[in-house]
Amino acid sequence: MDAAAALDATFAALADPTRRAILARLALGEASAGELARPFAMSGPAVTKHLKVLERAGLISRGRAAQQRPARLEPAALKAVSDWIQEYRRLWDEKFDRLDTYLEQLQTQGETK
Amino acid sequence: MDAAAALDATFAALADPTRRAILARLALGEASAGELARPFAMSGPAVTKHLKVLERAGLISRGRAAQQRPARLEPAALKAVSDWIQEYRRLWDEKFDRLDTYLEQLQTQGETK
Repeated sequence: MDAAAALDATFAALADPTRRAILARLALGEASAGELARPFAMSGPAVTKHLKVLERAGLISRGRAAQQRPARLEPAALKAVSDWIQEYRRLWDEKFDRLDTYLEQLQTQGETK
Repeated sequence: MDAAAALDATFAALADPTRRAILARLALGEASAGELARPFAMSGPAVTKHLKVLERAGLISRGRAAQQRPARLEPAALKAVSDWIQEYRRLWDEKFDRLDTYLEQLQTQGETK
């Protein structure tokens, strides 16, 4: 999978609130599909389906322990998304910088009056 | 659209290499669908379809000038993704911190031998 295809899979996997909630849970530590199903009030097969999408996207890995196969968050795929988005940071920083400048000007005008 | 639904739409819109390339182009300045179609060797309707997905996701806005409707990047939706992902930053930072510590230990061992 090349970098673009990997980003496609990661973004597609993240476009679901349940999968984002599973990642938030796994950020606290690994968990089996059964442990994940309970708080989310989801069936085992529904959780397993989400875990497969997350695993294919490289966002999690799963242990080999036969019954449990604990899921673990893999930060590298999230870091790739973060690296991609940082390229655009200057765009919103600039926007806020312009607002800052404007507010400073207003303040200076207020002081000199 | 609540925050979760907005993130769903943004992530889904970003899960396509052509749409990410369009955003990269728009980061340099606004462009009409026609101007975008040329370098991407895409038909006008294909570009328009991608622009609609990006617009619905709040990633771009389009001008009102009847024929041209220049597309402009809207950084706020990208910032929302960035804010979401920053919650996970400590996970990969910690991973690299642990690697750093390990490498430092190796180096110290090498020096004391």
